[in-house]
Amino acid sequence: MKYYSEMTIEELKEEEEALMISYEACQAKELRLNMARGKPSSVQLDISNDMLGAVTKRNGYHSEDGLDCRNYGGTFGIPEAQRTLASIMECNPEHVIVYGNSSLNLMFDLISYAYTHGLNGNTPWGKLPEVKFLCPVPGYDRHFAVTEHFGIKMINIPMDENGPDMDMVEQYVNNDPTVKGMWCVPKFENPEGICYSDEVIRRMAGLRRAADDFRIYYDNAYAVHYLYEDDQPKILNLIDACVEAGHPDIYFEFCSTSKITYAGGGISGMTASENNLSEVRNLMSVSTIGYDKVNMLRNARYLKEGAAIPEVMMKHAAILRPKFELVVNMLEEEIGPRGIGSWVSPKGGYFVSFHAMKGCAKEIVRLAKEAGVVLTPAGAPFPYGKDPDDSVIRIAPSLPPMGELKDAMEIFMICVKLASVRKLQEELA
Amino acid sequence: MKYYSEMTIEELKEEEEALMISYEACQAKELRLNMARGKPSSVQLDISNDMLGAVTKRNGYHSEDGLDCRNYGGTFGIPEAQRTLASIMECNPEHVIVYGNSSLNLMFDLISYAYTHGLNGNTPWGKLPEVKFLCPVPGYDRHFAVTEHFGIKMINIPMDENGPDMDMVEQYVNNDPTVKGMWCVPKFENPEGICYSDEVIRRMAGLRRAADDFRIYYDNAYAVHYLYEDDQPKILNLIDACVEAGHPDIYFEFCSTSKITYAGGGISGMTASENNLSEVRNLMSVSTIGYDKVNMLRNARYLKEGAAIPEVMMKHAAILRPKFELVVNMLEEEIGPRGIGSWVSPKGGYFVSFHAMKGCAKEIVRLAKEAGVVLTPAGAPFPYGKDPDDSVIRIAPSLPPMGELKDAMEIFMICVKLASVRKLQEELA
Repeated sequence: MKYYSEMTIEELKEEEEALMISYEACQAKELRLNMARGKPSSVQLDISNDMLGAVTKRNGYHSEDGLDCRNYGGTFGIPEAQRTLASIMECNPEHVIVYGNSSLNLMFDLISYAYTHGLNGNTPWGKLPEVKFLCPVPGYDRHFAVTEHFGIKMINIPMDENGPDMDMVEQYVNNDPTVKGMWCVPKFENPEGICYSDEVIRRMAGLRRAADDFRIYYDNAYAVHYLYEDDQPKILNLIDACVEAGHPDIYFEFCSTSKITYAGGGISGMTASENNLSEVRNLMSVSTIGYDKVNMLRNARYLKEGAAIPEVMMKHAAILRPKFELVVNMLEEEIGPRGIGSWVSPKGGYFVSFHAMKGCAKEIVRLAKEAGVVLTPAGAPFPYGKDPDDSVIRIAPSLPPMGELKDAMEIFMICVKLASVRKLQEELA
Repeated sequence: MKYYSEMTIEELKEEEEALMISYEACQAKELRLNMARGKPSSVQLDISNDMLGAVTKRNGYHSEDGLDCRNYGGTFGIPEAQRTLASIMECNPEHVIVYGNSSLNLMFDLISYAYTHGLNGNTPWGKLPEVKFLCPVPGYDRHFAVTEHFGIKMINIPMDENGPDMDMVEQYVNNDPTVKGMWCVPKFENPEGICYSDEVIRRMAGLRRAADDFRIYYDNAYAVHYLYEDDQPKILNLIDACVEAGHPDIYFEFCSTSKITYAGGGISGMTASENNLSEVRNLMSVSTIGYDKVNMLRNARYLKEGAAIPEVMMKHAAILRPKFELVVNMLEEEIGPRGIGSWVSPKGGYFVSFHAMKGCAKEIVRLAKEAGVVLTPAGAPFPYGKDPDDSVIRIAPSLPPMGELKDAMEIFMICVKLASVRKLQEELA
């Protein structure tokens, strides 16, 4: 096999014709496949069905502090749920606020609050002429949608296998007071699957921010989402690093049980300094009568306040691992030897991020769609949906069963090759 | 027995001395009683314990549209839950958006959205020099806390047994473009327990608002919360009235199952015109991955999509009715003949609103507290916590068991009498 880039225009033409035969054969099958969404499969959801029986008449409705979870009260969460989320974020349970089922909703609410009221006495962002957020890319499209909603200017920060380009981050955060935040998914990052290095996290904690209300929005969504029992990367604890650096207020950390128990019925929460938490409590005292404590109790009991999480996650891994390995193996066999793409083989998380030849991502997604495979739109992992290189495609292998995933990946690779041979011909022409 | 107002200063003095003996005897008991909060009692919560088994492996996790409720998806709610809430609001289920467990949170989010983005293309309230809300008083303190949070100027609107003073409402809404909203609890109003008359609702629907983004925030929190099987007041359907008046966009209506199933584990939602709902959907597409659908399914199945609600509510009534009757009977026996207060005997809802002699409410609440009975702070049912007459005290009889409620009411009445004799002596002096 040869790198496409080493082929002559005639060879490329010949390859394209062969690929078109395969492509049309795929289209003829009229498949309907989907690798677009980071949704757990139904067998993964089945893992936690015992959770549904975790709150019953027999085992009681009260949290350990004596609150009847069925009733009003306990606006900031019950101790059991605090400990559950603290075990994920590796923090003091007393510094945890428990929210509803969507951590995205919590991030949205914080940013909305900063916009309307300002954080810790700072000017509300809505009253400032410009507010900027740093966005390591590729990243999570729904983060970017939140900041875009509030008219916040988003700045792409390139990433490598260690995390965001910290020289660039320091340049912005330390000098520009309009930079108010930075989105981060530090572990098994969405969609690259990489983990931030200790040095990156230490430099983040050490940021001498020009804006007092600059915060790291640290979405630890995949903190315990390992694919391998014997290869579980650890990342530096941001909270400790921030305290050591003398910047205890510089972060908000978020997590949820969405991809531990039920994506649609988990619990979410945050940790932060007491300074920051008191601000959030002020908000919540007005914005809600409190989140669903029965579901907090359900999640906390089922997960044994965190003690059962490693076991539950290995059950997920047993289902997810073969899917990730299938994707990576197929890429290694078919794409690697042709030199038309790159990817990181992740050790956890929910995504494989494929970097196609520049200028090919949109075309690959289009070709795949017309052959019955829905992918995340090209550009989605970038602010404003704009991938400057038109290169990154997020592959979400979790939802389809193995057979469908294999079919989808076969079509995907034909599309990658087809778009690449055409691009190379254009360039040679 | 004599009206206190007809007593001489000597008689009042004598009465005060007798009351002080009773009061000190109460203090000596060192009771800890609470009539402050509209929380259901644990026996009421027990009514719905079967709900916990409504979603299990055996009866399935899917909504009727095929969605696995355990997973992501279905951001705006599942059809079963839409029908459940539609049965409460008497509206088209397709015009229902289902939210989390807190309808207050939904109201907060809408007002926050109006503040940051503006409703239906109107100027965001945060960019206006002044925004006003009309607040029928006494009303729900947490409504007022939301508008106060956003710096919205609140205007007291007096109420009588038919609802808010509509002459005053029309005067404001039809002429003042800075009036952007009006809080309403139309049925068994918190805390008066009154129901808006058909004429009031029709006049609300007919408001020729000066501001295009004026909305009635219609919190139908007690829509089905009757105390009597054979005496269930109906109110005019606002939605139909608004359509008839040619003002389909003038309202947002809210409800929840918080006081039907679990106060801490129900579901909430809203109905509005398609024009308004599309705005809410835009917001929710950014602000959340969607609310807990497992809990939607649980509530909807248990309540048989609304069909079981009358039966469930009569179970609540059987528990609540004797408490309300106790409160009203005691007031009638002890306070009525002395002419030192008034109240409405409600046919539903969660509160009895006691109107003390002017200038006595704070003192009554203080006296009660020092005798071991916690009441809702005087002033709480008014914007900014300021009751202009210092007269209204909200009595919440739902939480304490009958014995405790009786003890608390006895103390309460001693405090009412004591504050009143002192006030009258001051006036005579």
